[in-house]
Amino acid sequence: MYDIAIIGGGPAGVSAAINAKILNKSFIWLSGEATSKKVGRAELIKNYPGLPDITGEQLAWTLKHHTESMGIELSKEVVTGVYDTGGKFSILAGNKEYEAKTVILCLGVQATKPVEGEEEFLGRGISYCATCDGMLYKDKNIAVVCMDKSFEREIEYLCGLAHTCTVVPMYKDIDVSAQNAKIVLKAPVKYSGDMRVRHVFFKDGSSIDVDGVFILKGAIPPSTLVHGLKTEGGHIAVNRACETNIAGIFAAGDCTGRPYQYVKAVGEGNVAVHSAVEYLSAANSE
Amino acid sequence: MYDIAIIGGGPAGVSAAINAKILNKSFIWLSGEATSKKVGRAELIKNYPGLPDITGEQLAWTLKHHTESMGIELSKEVVTGVYDTGGKFSILAGNKEYEAKTVILCLGVQATKPVEGEEEFLGRGISYCATCDGMLYKDKNIAVVCMDKSFEREIEYLCGLAHTCTVVPMYKDIDVSAQNAKIVLKAPVKYSGDMRVRHVFFKDGSSIDVDGVFILKGAIPPSTLVHGLKTEGGHIAVNRACETNIAGIFAAGDCTGRPYQYVKAVGEGNVAVHSAVEYLSAANSE
Repeated sequence: MYDIAIIGGGPAGVSAAINAKILNKSFIWLSGEATSKKVGRAELIKNYPGLPDITGEQLAWTLKHHTESMGIELSKEVVTGVYDTGGKFSILAGNKEYEAKTVILCLGVQATKPVEGEEEFLGRGISYCATCDGMLYKDKNIAVVCMDKSFEREIEYLCGLAHTCTVVPMYKDIDVSAQNAKIVLKAPVKYSGDMRVRHVFFKDGSSIDVDGVFILKGAIPPSTLVHGLKTEGGHIAVNRACETNIAGIFAAGDCTGRPYQYVKAVGEGNVAVHSAVEYLSAANSE
Repeated sequence: MYDIAIIGGGPAGVSAAINAKILNKSFIWLSGEATSKKVGRAELIKNYPGLPDITGEQLAWTLKHHTESMGIELSKEVVTGVYDTGGKFSILAGNKEYEAKTVILCLGVQATKPVEGEEEFLGRGISYCATCDGMLYKDKNIAVVCMDKSFEREIEYLCGLAHTCTVVPMYKDIDVSAQNAKIVLKAPVKYSGDMRVRHVFFKDGSSIDVDGVFILKGAIPPSTLVHGLKTEGGHIAVNRACETNIAGIFAAGDCTGRPYQYVKAVGEGNVAVHSAVEYLSAANSE
């Protein structure tokens, strides 16, 4: 059982991890992507006080270096669910399950909105997690919508289980070796069905019939990730202490709303850990 | 008329100034102390993401360097009052007056509480501003309580005007050349009087009679500085957007509450400027 589970490897997550370490708490730091991967794509950052005219690549490096110099390790795992199990939380990542007394969500913002029907059929034929739900679709006909090249091993795993596997990559240069994989280079626009998902519709009006759909992406909508989490306009609702509506769950960075700024994110990562530590102290003294 | 007046030279003020510059707003940046003076006294900072194991002196230098590299200048002036003049604000600093459409308060936290009677007699014989109110005490008997060596020129100015001048330094090695200055090395504990301040009481029980008292310090309590500003437990009350209860006035950094952390302060400086810019846009489109 960890004191804190930090979810997300961006600047807010980095700041949270650094502060959790300094404040001597046991913690696990989970992220589907490497430390500050998105930061690395920024061209030039002028408003990170103390690091004038730093490139995104340099900032990503220095954030990564900062955590490594303190012996902090990032577990590169996609978290697919956070469950309140009564005074503690269960965090699912792939086929692993972690337990923590508090959770700090540093999820960033999603570049892509969920497609029509995605949230409706989630858990009813649509899954975000290959290793969790793959076995349910043995010898079935599935579609795998993949947002990032880093998930290609999961595609191969799913193709290995399924009867037919329609692979829909949302990026260029897909490289998947599976005999039953049928690559479709069209964007999905709608999922439909009855009690369960049955069809995937594409932008050109065509559709396919399926028994299940896997959507592989690093960023899962916060309210999907954590049942009952209050959001406002797509952002996690938090107060000044970075507390969400669920006691013991905190949030920091872009996922809590604008401005989308690195320095706001690191500031909130710090605040969220201080709030988590206060929460842990109060829980211990009960 | 400036778009933004930033008050305070600590990390929150630095971040606000950097962002105001980047967002191309006209602004003035006022502080009684040099950039990040207090930061320079910190021994070792481990949780400023991107700058691992930096000393306070190094962080202060790098923050100062960041603003200077962008051509941002700090006006070293003590702000003694902020007044709402209807859709804009008047900022008093010494005998100067600045006008701005918005104000960002980055006041830090006070190490010292006000002494008994200080707030009661403020404006009734007690003043924080030598150059503003000095002339009112020509040939009178005054006390000058001085918190920092940097105000010694103000002491000399006041002694030059007054009949008798009791100087109460709250630091070591006072160096004031004024014939009528009487140095008293005792801490003041209470100001009393009738309609105006009349007496200064010291810790040892002794007292002196005065016509006026000047208290020279960099940090003036927020609610004294800005009439009508809402505070909570000594901190300026703000929402997530760093808005205070007064439209057009924002606050950032330690003055808004715990945790007292550099990275929280720079984050809020950023947020406050973004909120000020939004406020300016809304005001322009009215």
